[in-house]
Amino acid sequence: MAEKRIGWIGTGVMGAAMCGHLLSAGYPVTVFNRGREKADPIIAKGAVWADTPKAVAQKSDIVFTMVGFPDDVHEVILGDDGVLAGASAGSTVVDMTTSSPDLAQTVYRACFAKGVNALDAPVSGGDIGAREATLAIMVGGDSAVFDAIRPLFEIMGKTIALMGNAGAGQHTKMTNQILIAGTMIGVVESLLYARKAGMDLDQVIDVIGKGAASSWSINNLGRRIADDNFDPGFFIKHFVKDMGIALDEAGRMHLSLPGLALVHQFYVAAMAMGWENLGTQGLYRVLDRMNQKT
Amino acid sequence: MAEKRIGWIGTGVMGAAMCGHLLSAGYPVTVFNRGREKADPIIAKGAVWADTPKAVAQKSDIVFTMVGFPDDVHEVILGDDGVLAGASAGSTVVDMTTSSPDLAQTVYRACFAKGVNALDAPVSGGDIGAREATLAIMVGGDSAVFDAIRPLFEIMGKTIALMGNAGAGQHTKMTNQILIAGTMIGVVESLLYARKAGMDLDQVIDVIGKGAASSWSINNLGRRIADDNFDPGFFIKHFVKDMGIALDEAGRMHLSLPGLALVHQFYVAAMAMGWENLGTQGLYRVLDRMNQKT
Repeated sequence: MAEKRIGWIGTGVMGAAMCGHLLSAGYPVTVFNRGREKADPIIAKGAVWADTPKAVAQKSDIVFTMVGFPDDVHEVILGDDGVLAGASAGSTVVDMTTSSPDLAQTVYRACFAKGVNALDAPVSGGDIGAREATLAIMVGGDSAVFDAIRPLFEIMGKTIALMGNAGAGQHTKMTNQILIAGTMIGVVESLLYARKAGMDLDQVIDVIGKGAASSWSINNLGRRIADDNFDPGFFIKHFVKDMGIALDEAGRMHLSLPGLALVHQFYVAAMAMGWENLGTQGLYRVLDRMNQKT
Repeated sequence: MAEKRIGWIGTGVMGAAMCGHLLSAGYPVTVFNRGREKADPIIAKGAVWADTPKAVAQKSDIVFTMVGFPDDVHEVILGDDGVLAGASAGSTVVDMTTSSPDLAQTVYRACFAKGVNALDAPVSGGDIGAREATLAIMVGGDSAVFDAIRPLFEIMGKTIALMGNAGAGQHTKMTNQILIAGTMIGVVESLLYARKAGMDLDQVIDVIGKGAASSWSINNLGRRIADDNFDPGFFIKHFVKDMGIALDEAGRMHLSLPGLALVHQFYVAAMAMGWENLGTQGLYRVLDRMNQKT
């Protein structure tokens, strides 16, 4: 078989950077995005535009999708003009969106019925990880398909792991986000307490940021809170989406996660306050506001 | 002044190890413990028994206390037979118990009125840190007093920090415990989710234990959960005490900490289930039980 023809759907901040690495590595890429202008930089780098996800699939051996919400994943893969409508038997669809494990399994089955391979492969590492190709890529699906796609993942990321069958990539990402949710309420409440007690936050982090209380979050986002810096590393609106998926999926499995539910609600309050474009450390401001005199 | 005469009150697992380091360094030590037999190993090492905290103080320049609960601190320092009843002007009382910041300030003021110095100096690092003299020691009080006692702290610990005025050591320890509480609910709920989703917990921790979700807790206590190991590093009963102090103190300051309150309640449930002597990772069993068919 000749060199693999790549399709790429979704050229937001993450997708454009990831797709750019494949172009730089010499792969031919056909691209689609809901708003064409956002695909222009990728087209300038050599990608060819197609008018629908279906048209992308017709010209590709492997189609990557990196879009917004599970509904978008459903539309670009399973919709009338979606990837599956144009995909040939033997081709592969790789959804890298953080999306629902349940939908990943639905996509897998729909693809399987047409002889099309499917992987779910959400990432962590954010826009910096996408730009520097240091993403962690968590994959669900068949191991032979994973092995075939792995060289492409290695162009986009650093830690590449097959976690199990279809949906396991999304499950791993959800596990990651649930872990962050709990850690963040600890970071925010501990620093609120310290400030209320009159302590210097940086001095406190110097001490508690090592040892049994230490985490990436306290040492990175905690420092930003100490600096009154709520700029986004990871947007609140995206984290709210991820936690919502995790809660839906947990509910579907009859699994009660009260900590996650509480943290989710405070982040929903952040949305209500108009803070959807703050970084996740903006949770501090929600609980701070709740603790201020009116 | 001749070599400082040390008094030590409280020879539990932590206190015995810490006091032992001072004895090994050559300091003369007078010792008291509520149950005398627990002081025997320290006496065998050369410490001299006294019948009350007051009697200890009468023979000491610096008295350390390392007892159980704030009520115990109140009794051994401020009680009729307490340290302050026997302490000379110019001597120093150092409470290393994890106790209430409010009580630390009360002790400071009572000592000040009699010309006695006081420091609050709770530790983190557990029994291993006590044994290996690698504790973090978080100190509140006057800087001249801290400077004078610092050489003794350095015999017992590795990270020694003056955090502010009286109570600031306890406030820092509370900040540490609030941070751990949030992190633990994240660890436990994320691993419950992963197991329910059919994932291998160690494989998941391999991936999420790096990067933005990483913490000491997921990489150490998470691993123990994956191994079904609920042995105590830090006892649930002690963590419940610490969170209770933090909630009391936060309430006193009019600070609402809903995440801490939720986690505290699940640990109280662990006590109800008879799991007070499990390690803090036993929180997993509480939420697991809540998610099992009856």
